[in-house]
Amino acid sequence: MKKLEVGILGATGMVGQRFISLLEHHPWFEVKWLAASERSAGKNYGEACNWRVRDPMPKAAAELPVNECKPGKAPQLVFSSLDSKVAGEVEKEFAQAGHVVVSNSSNHRMDADVPLLIPEVNPDHLALARLQRVERKWKGMIVTNPNCTAVGLVMSLAPLERAFGLEKVMMTSMQAVSGAGYPGLPTLDIIGNVIPFIGGEEEKVERETRKLLGRLKDGRVELGNFVVSAHCNRVLVEDGHTESISVALRSAAKVEDLIDAWRKWHARPQELHLPSAPKHPIIVREERDRPQVKFDVGSENGMATVVGRVRPCPVLQFKYTALSHNTVRGAAGAALLNAELMKAEGYLD
Amino acid sequence: MKKLEVGILGATGMVGQRFISLLEHHPWFEVKWLAASERSAGKNYGEACNWRVRDPMPKAAAELPVNECKPGKAPQLVFSSLDSKVAGEVEKEFAQAGHVVVSNSSNHRMDADVPLLIPEVNPDHLALARLQRVERKWKGMIVTNPNCTAVGLVMSLAPLERAFGLEKVMMTSMQAVSGAGYPGLPTLDIIGNVIPFIGGEEEKVERETRKLLGRLKDGRVELGNFVVSAHCNRVLVEDGHTESISVALRSAAKVEDLIDAWRKWHARPQELHLPSAPKHPIIVREERDRPQVKFDVGSENGMATVVGRVRPCPVLQFKYTALSHNTVRGAAGAALLNAELMKAEGYLD
Amino acid sequence: MKKLEVGILGATGMVGQRFISLLEHHPWFEVKWLAASERSAGKNYGEACNWRVRDPMPKAAAELPVNECKPGKAPQLVFSSLDSKVAGEVEKEFAQAGHVVVSNSSNHRMDADVPLLIPEVNPDHLALARLQRVERKWKGMIVTNPNCTAVGLVMSLAPLERAFGLEKVMMTSMQAVSGAGYPGLPTLDIIGNVIPFIGGEEEKVERETRKLLGRLKDGRVELGNFVVSAHCNRVLVEDGHTESISVALRSAAKVEDLIDAWRKWHARPQELHLPSAPKHPIIVREERDRPQVKFDVGSENGMATVVGRVRPCPVLQFKYTALSHNTVRGAAGAALLNAELMKAEGYLD
Amino acid sequence: MKKLEVGILGATGMVGQRFISLLEHHPWFEVKWLAASERSAGKNYGEACNWRVRDPMPKAAAELPVNECKPGKAPQLVFSSLDSKVAGEVEKEFAQAGHVVVSNSSNHRMDADVPLLIPEVNPDHLALARLQRVERKWKGMIVTNPNCTAVGLVMSLAPLERAFGLEKVMMTSMQAVSGAGYPGLPTLDIIGNVIPFIGGEEEKVERETRKLLGRLKDGRVELGNFVVSAHCNRVLVEDGHTESISVALRSAAKVEDLIDAWRKWHARPQELHLPSAPKHPIIVREERDRPQVKFDVGSENGMATVVGRVRPCPVLQFKYTALSHNTVRGAAGAALLNAELMKAEGYLD
Repeated sequence: MKKLEVGILGATGMVGQRFISLLEHHPWFEVKWLAASERSAGKNYGEACNWRVRDPMPKAAAELPVNECKPGKAPQLVFSSLDSKVAGEVEKEFAQAGHVVVSNSSNHRMDADVPLLIPEVNPDHLALARLQRVERKWKGMIVTNPNCTAVGLVMSLAPLERAFGLEKVMMTSMQAVSGAGYPGLPTLDIIGNVIPFIGGEEEKVERETRKLLGRLKDGRVELGNFVVSAHCNRVLVEDGHTESISVALRSAAKVEDLIDAWRKWHARPQELHLPSAPKHPIIVREERDRPQVKFDVGSENGMATVVGRVRPCPVLQFKYTALSHNTVRGAAGAALLNAELMKAEGYLD
Repeated sequence: MKKLEVGILGATGMVGQRFISLLEHHPWFEVKWLAASERSAGKNYGEACNWRVRDPMPKAAAELPVNECKPGKAPQLVFSSLDSKVAGEVEKEFAQAGHVVVSNSSNHRMDADVPLLIPEVNPDHLALARLQRVERKWKGMIVTNPNCTAVGLVMSLAPLERAFGLEKVMMTSMQAVSGAGYPGLPTLDIIGNVIPFIGGEEEKVERETRKLLGRLKDGRVELGNFVVSAHCNRVLVEDGHTESISVALRSAAKVEDLIDAWRKWHARPQELHLPSAPKHPIIVREERDRPQVKFDVGSENGMATVVGRVRPCPVLQFKYTALSHNTVRGAAGAALLNAELMKAEGYLD
Repeated sequence: MKKLEVGILGATGMVGQRFISLLEHHPWFEVKWLAASERSAGKNYGEACNWRVRDPMPKAAAELPVNECKPGKAPQLVFSSLDSKVAGEVEKEFAQAGHVVVSNSSNHRMDADVPLLIPEVNPDHLALARLQRVERKWKGMIVTNPNCTAVGLVMSLAPLERAFGLEKVMMTSMQAVSGAGYPGLPTLDIIGNVIPFIGGEEEKVERETRKLLGRLKDGRVELGNFVVSAHCNRVLVEDGHTESISVALRSAAKVEDLIDAWRKWHARPQELHLPSAPKHPIIVREERDRPQVKFDVGSENGMATVVGRVRPCPVLQFKYTALSHNTVRGAAGAALLNAELMKAEGYLD
Repeated sequence: MKKLEVGILGATGMVGQRFISLLEHHPWFEVKWLAASERSAGKNYGEACNWRVRDPMPKAAAELPVNECKPGKAPQLVFSSLDSKVAGEVEKEFAQAGHVVVSNSSNHRMDADVPLLIPEVNPDHLALARLQRVERKWKGMIVTNPNCTAVGLVMSLAPLERAFGLEKVMMTSMQAVSGAGYPGLPTLDIIGNVIPFIGGEEEKVERETRKLLGRLKDGRVELGNFVVSAHCNRVLVEDGHTESISVALRSAAKVEDLIDAWRKWHARPQELHLPSAPKHPIIVREERDRPQVKFDVGSENGMATVVGRVRPCPVLQFKYTALSHNTVRGAAGAALLNAELMKAEGYLD
């Protein structure tokens, strides 16, 4: 089968690099077109990019020219990891021009007709994208994945919401520095420190969670009928967001019931055997001190959410810890799985 | 004024070392007697102790002999930072023999007749100690300070509880490695990692908080009438526990009211001008990204609790961040302030 | 081909765990027998071992019983990563009883009739082992690999020594914490710190380097005719020893000649296609800021030595940086490659 | 005594902030004028500066206006910590206009008529500054302090050079991240890593060391008659450069002679009782594992150089470890001590 050619907007940034790394041996997609800011445009990727991924830069990518962020010669499918300062406009321009933009940027996530998607959680929301053609008269479309902190939270909440209903969610994150991009966080800010603030993050988590777990009804997403509160902190970890979560459910459940719901959760990407889908989207660890970044962040190539320490919560009902890889499942891997779902569901024909 | 001679049980451990360091130039107390495990007994402190505090070991301490943990020749006032494996029995033995044991160990904290004390919060609980003489027929007594994670939490809750009443408390901690003592946490466990479990810690925080904020009634402490849930995590920070806290109050309040309650809080140790009392027991930072370990952990010589980021909580009512120095305010400094209160209130005459 | 059964002495320690991990899918060897200290003996490995390797414990190993460190039922080939407090005697006992002990422990490395081996550097020294049978009347033998800091140094020196002769070597190491085993270094010792001392390390590097690069003559190793000075430091890195090295050579050379000597170096393990042999034993990086632990420590599965920054040295002649994975190439992987060489050379028939 | 008014060029940078912090309670000098880049000029310092020093910003500084870097209204004495991209020209302009520029920038350090000064080492080099008036027709002058890595090295070498003569010096540094300024090093670059390269650093150390230890002769500095080789590495430490040093001396000496030379070293700033002079410019630690950043970097308020581990070196003659605080003794504190020397020697009248 001939691979589908894809492009990357924002190819030189941290998430752009992850896209290139994850796509290196992808069975369906092949990177053929790169774009970045004017500073990089005109150079070869090998020169333009300060490569920070541990695995070496794929040779094929190194030789690609870096284009300006203009539609036209780009392939139909374009991944976007543009800075949110420019992503809003550029992504619209690409969608208007007929491109399918699978974006990790936050700008359009909450637009009423833009799917905010986790393929295991709300694959049906993809249908929203067709509205863009009707209402915006776009030939292409924009599809987004959630904020890196929301992903692990929602992955762990979805089976609970389906099985028992959700009433309240409290989440405190301990987030990795890679979430801030590159150069990102100055060492002097975080060495021996915890920073109890990440601009805009708590708001994103609180609203994206309700959209992701909302129901599609009459072509609109009804936000999930529960409240979410997020405390977001930065800690000295490279990759992997750890989250302390408490929940109140709508129907009675025991600790074992939660574990059972997680373990049995087998969703659309697994049914479709999407290439980047984790075999087990949620892994439940039973040791009393897991999940831990050190041992668990790479589970299922960074695509699984790992939960543990489920126990009663005196204030809400249950509490547990969840861990998710923020630059894989929380960014490039998330967008990639979205694109795979779209391909499997006929959105890229 | 001649200084009061004091002894230290567990003098070679991390908290023991902090006692010696904090007491070096103390205006009221003077370290004259040290005790530690059999391995150390018989040596001079200078030889016996693997000193890990940044300031050099006080010369006077270096030359003191290390005794076995037996009462008799010890001074009346004895600070204890014994390992909880032995503290229970040893502290009892000292209290029976007439010593006033001011302990940082957890063993007796929840005993009905043992004061669990934060001088700014519940100085009246000290009266419980007299019961020990009556009921246990002890000539001495045991007085304790709380767990290092409970201190910052309760310091920040007390003004809210007094002003508005407390209904629910949710706390997620990001705790420093020094809380685990020395040698404590292996580097390989925590480098680039978060450990979402600290043995026994959540239980201690949940129960000690309610005793500390309880009311003394008929010679017993009625536990505070609110629920507490704690998530405890370890992060790569040397000193300083950061806590993400959400609360529901019993009467209406606005964000400014909370700030006002904290800023106005001026308690017994400040009235009595106790030597180790922070001038401002609670410091409210208004920057959007504080408190931070790097800048705030040493506030008021590590004796203040620093709070910030007060804002509405969609699930409870308010959320904020608190920071407290775990080996000063959360251990040796806490016991020292307890002893100062006891001295000022006539318990050491 | 039926795999050769092997045993591990010191199986529960950090290096023992690495042996088990590296041997999990080994084409020639299969772990069938484990031994550790009395504390562990009698339990299953799964229970006895506090597994600290990131990859999960192999299932087959988890179910093996842990034996006492006594010969008899052990297989012919035994890897040893015993603590040096006991390794001296235990390894002798095993060799006497007919076992081939391939050891990572330091005790016998400098014995005149014990090969201290890096298969790429001095495979001919293996012949020394036969002397043990003659002189010590042992039925088995002991073969050792060098100290973790000496390996990277000697790997980088060997091609220079062969091509130009060595006169002087100055090496300053920045060593990873995993070199100290587990629990090893307390976090409080190394967080935000550099420790400029590692007990016995400099002496080992200085003497082992000269034995490794010595010539076998009349059944004895003539130590290399050059001087070595080592400064050993510990830094906050998990795996990977970085070394700043200066050398004076015996014949004229240019920077390019050194690079050429390294790139062309292709030695016995590569000729024999030993399963753990790196394809490129030495990798020369040309970027001005490499090798770096972050990007290079895993090169060739941690079996390659990565060098870079070769430039003139105003005091000696040339200076460069070398990086080697201390628990793979510097410990378990080193012993494993030794055993593979012995198998290929007929020492295990 | 009325304090001398001083200005700061580059006041918002890391070193500029240190100047302000160190000068807060200075007995001789008072900060009255600040300048920084155009971006900051026109604002108050409190607004313009992203303050990163742990101690709070002095109130007096917060209210000062930030000026452009133009002479005229600036006080006679101006400290400079300008970026080297602009320092060259700006400092000249100030010197021409009659200001005494005490600079931490590297641009003019090697100019033949510019003193490169460590007051304990070469206070007589200050006389060079008068040449600037004659040869350059400047009304003011420029005086510089060395690179942060050179300071600790030269402080430790000076007593050896004076007592025994120096022939060869080999230095490998493990440098703190604060040396790279702010924002400086991205966390993702250094977490769990060692970076074996710092642009321009080795060259600076090698040449500045020889100028600092050179002799003033006929109005010129004859460079020291010895060779220096530097390997510079970056490690995950906040403040404090650790250096592994080997030396060959010109006359016979024993380990104790070196220790003796260091301990007896008492130089001009100590004789003059300059306010920032450390009482003991060199502290010799006798523990086998010191100096360590954790315990020693703050010695004498960060103004002392701490040495330890003196022992024979098989390649040169002696080896030892030195530690120096890079942003205090290696930057702002160095310039401040230079200015104090100039004041005491009549250069500021």
